[in-house]
Amino acid sequence: MKRITLLLAAVVILAGVIEFTAPASLHAADSDTPIFVTKIPPGYRDWRLISVSHEAGNLNSIGAVLGNDVAIKAYRDGTLPYPDGTIIAALHYGHVASAENNKVFGQAQSFVAGAPTNVQFMVKDSTKYAAAGGWGFATFIDGKSAPAASMKSCFPCHNQAKASDLVFTHYAP
Amino acid sequence: MKRITLLLAAVVILAGVIEFTAPASLHAADSDTPIFVTKIPPGYRDWRLISVSHEAGNLNSIGAVLGNDVAIKAYRDGTLPYPDGTIIAALHYGHVASAENNKVFGQAQSFVAGAPTNVQFMVKDSTKYAAAGGWGFATFIDGKSAPAASMKSCFPCHNQAKASDLVFTHYAP
Repeated sequence: MKRITLLLAAVVILAGVIEFTAPASLHAADSDTPIFVTKIPPGYRDWRLISVSHEAGNLNSIGAVLGNDVAIKAYRDGTLPYPDGTIIAALHYGHVASAENNKVFGQAQSFVAGAPTNVQFMVKDSTKYAAAGGWGFATFIDGKSAPAASMKSCFPCHNQAKASDLVFTHYAP
Repeated sequence: MKRITLLLAAVVILAGVIEFTAPASLHAADSDTPIFVTKIPPGYRDWRLISVSHEAGNLNSIGAVLGNDVAIKAYRDGTLPYPDGTIIAALHYGHVASAENNKVFGQAQSFVAGAPTNVQFMVKDSTKYAAAGGWGFATFIDGKSAPAASMKSCFPCHNQAKASDLVFTHYAP
């Protein structure tokens, strides 16, 4: 009995060590950008609207950018840099023609949100994510973290928006 | 003093009569559709997201469709017809290319919300708006009601979406 308990304890500790070291391993192996955000922030679908977006070309997506309370307050107050605790969510969907709407309009003009393509997050924690400008980046596809390799470009790309603390989306009135 | 008070009372009563009769006058003069919703529902910018949309062509707009708590609950529960108290808001903005984003992407692909073009509402009250399928329709431009003539098409157009209780927008997960 005692040996089984010890064995279980060893497994739990080992699991903890693996979980703890995983981000560092991913970092070393796949990317110059640390990937820290591995869980979907709860309740994000109830957050308030920051703005909307449309990416043509290969992405072919339409999106809503939502913010938690900290984010919305910072946007409305014009606070820069965004305070720790800010979370910005970008909900992306396929940009699909609506046959239903076009029939009513009498012409092909209407595009709506198709199936979800991904949900992306930026989480501000200036200490934890100091290596990436204070932001943790995440992409979830079907509720699962996107492959680490696909996250390589998050920080270098967002880092070009230094004037707005690495955030591209402006607040829509 | 007494005469001034009486005069003021008369003005207040008259104003009330004018306000009360205005919708009926508009109805008779400009449209077969009653226009009832003359005030912007308070707090709509804080409502939760239903979905996003993009109208190409002459409208050239990108939009967010938000719902009050009654609307969001009905959408999520799949309740049809929508219960009284439902309010759906469509916030429309110019669909404008983002030079800032395109520079980072290295190609012309990104469109964002430009200046607001209008905010439209559908307010469900099956008694008050019985003549228009239970929905009051409204368009506000720069915070002011759009001309009554421009509202003529709301009900006949939405009335083609009978299967979804006159609502075009589907809920985006």
